[in-house]
Amino acid sequence: MHEFELIKNYFQKLSKKSISALNLNDDVFFDKKNKLVVSVDTYIEGNHFINFKKPDLVIKKIIRSSISDLICKGVKPKYYFLSGSGNRKSFSKSNLSKISKSLNEEQNKYKIFLSGGDTVFSNKLSFTITSIGFANNIVYRNKAKINDDIYVSGNLGDSYLGLLVLKNKIKLNNLLTKYFTNQYFKPNIQLKLTGQIKKFANSSIDISDGLLADLDKMINVQNLSYKLNLKDIPISNNLKKVLDFKKLSKINYISKGDDYQVLFTASKNKRRIISQIASFCRIKLTKIGSTHSIRNKSSIVDDKNIQISLKNKGFLHKF
Amino acid sequence: MHEFELIKNYFQKLSKKSISALNLNDDVFFDKKNKLVVSVDTYIEGNHFINFKKPDLVIKKIIRSSISDLICKGVKPKYYFLSGSGNRKSFSKSNLSKISKSLNEEQNKYKIFLSGGDTVFSNKLSFTITSIGFANNIVYRNKAKINDDIYVSGNLGDSYLGLLVLKNKIKLNNLLTKYFTNQYFKPNIQLKLTGQIKKFANSSIDISDGLLADLDKMINVQNLSYKLNLKDIPISNNLKKVLDFKKLSKINYISKGDDYQVLFTASKNKRRIISQIASFCRIKLTKIGSTHSIRNKSSIVDDKNIQISLKNKGFLHKF
Repeated sequence: MHEFELIKNYFQKLSKKSISALNLNDDVFFDKKNKLVVSVDTYIEGNHFINFKKPDLVIKKIIRSSISDLICKGVKPKYYFLSGSGNRKSFSKSNLSKISKSLNEEQNKYKIFLSGGDTVFSNKLSFTITSIGFANNIVYRNKAKINDDIYVSGNLGDSYLGLLVLKNKIKLNNLLTKYFTNQYFKPNIQLKLTGQIKKFANSSIDISDGLLADLDKMINVQNLSYKLNLKDIPISNNLKKVLDFKKLSKINYISKGDDYQVLFTASKNKRRIISQIASFCRIKLTKIGSTHSIRNKSSIVDDKNIQISLKNKGFLHKF
Repeated sequence: MHEFELIKNYFQKLSKKSISALNLNDDVFFDKKNKLVVSVDTYIEGNHFINFKKPDLVIKKIIRSSISDLICKGVKPKYYFLSGSGNRKSFSKSNLSKISKSLNEEQNKYKIFLSGGDTVFSNKLSFTITSIGFANNIVYRNKAKINDDIYVSGNLGDSYLGLLVLKNKIKLNNLLTKYFTNQYFKPNIQLKLTGQIKKFANSSIDISDGLLADLDKMINVQNLSYKLNLKDIPISNNLKKVLDFKKLSKINYISKGDDYQVLFTASKNKRRIISQIASFCRIKLTKIGSTHSIRNKSSIVDDKNIQISLKNKGFLHKF
């Protein structure tokens, strides 16, 4: 069963539509009356992070992943709650010091602070992070308009390459190894976008599961399709170098998830303001496609406008 | 390392005192400016609940345990977020139906609703619940005054007896088996107290780890001691019956935790209002002792004012 079905079949009826129009169908919960925005995510060793050999880096990854949910909605994260389940080895004094130091660095970087949580003993390591922010309004899912432009922030694919490096599935020189593993552990999330995105986006989501999987999620109750241009999908110079050198296909590296970039749609008449804000705030925002009527099938096309087929759209949480 | 030390050594410095005076040293986080109250707790199979043979009952237990943190502070819980980690068996369709039905019953009983969460695959079953409420003020820990009366709501010990029955460590007839296991799974939390407790309590906590362990926690940064009268500690008629019949000592059954009753202190001049409110709202509130200067050692005494020694104060989360 997919996560969507699970929510739809068993949990959606338990939410209260009058308070949150999102009805469990968004990255965050938004209580408009109280201006409260909440995101809750659980991270399991071996699934959401590869292992706990580098506790400091894992902590950075999961904190950024959590606040990314708020950021993509245009909400500044304010505080977070961290619940950790693990054994004595995972929470040794040395690891606790590293975790604490790492949290402190993230707090300074993103102006957030720890407000509570829980620590329990378990032979399986996992964390649940609750991130909270306040906002008068947010950018929702499922509010894209037909013929919207589709944009993405930053670059895609670096984190996936970092994962392949960490799993020894790809060998690179030291410099590139460091670059990509850093991108895996410390995704370059776009805090600066929070104050801006509401000015132009109709709909948004952050890319955790993969570009196409998350694009599907962003419009999953809308009668819309999308068309993306592969060549426009932004990748780093380093990733381009690796793909060229190893003769790998771009299409297999840009929708694997863990990017924590912001995917959004905007009306065509917002192109100028988007380009101005991008340049003023020094955020890379790239137009990668557009939305269409459901009569067209969703597709991703190459230089010659030829549709590319994909085996796998990204990571879907399944039971 | 105890949970207290862990928080003190590694995490307290990460909290922001200016926003929350509680400084991670209370059951809840309280953002006074935004009137927001948050509690986050993680529950692990085999530790916080015995097993998952009765998913519907486990769900009730953990939901009540979570909102109990808000209730004891005088805060009405408004919504909750549920993150579950488990395998396909734990989250089978049949179990999901039971979980959903059970959540619905709790929602109706306590006027709360599900606002989000996460479901992830793990071979170890655990849940993290974030409960949220709104309040202008709360009853804090560590605000007891010297010579305060100490009160507890409801009865203590029933839940522990239920656990012993479930573990086959004690044999009872069917009626009593049902009574005590029900008390274990469905603690009789005191929602009615939320609107009242701020009128009289100086300090409060809910009893999850055990009467004495939680009493210690409630005054852990104060120069105070306590004196409790064993005979005044309220137990149910059923528990009294079992203790008498099996010749068991009351002292070994009233501080084992999982009671989710409210423990609080109040000035002596509040006795009348407390008794009026208890009678009007039909809440059992029992005076069980008083607070004293730290020069006196904390103690629990029998009928003859003789101090009783305890092997174990209750459950301390240790690493």
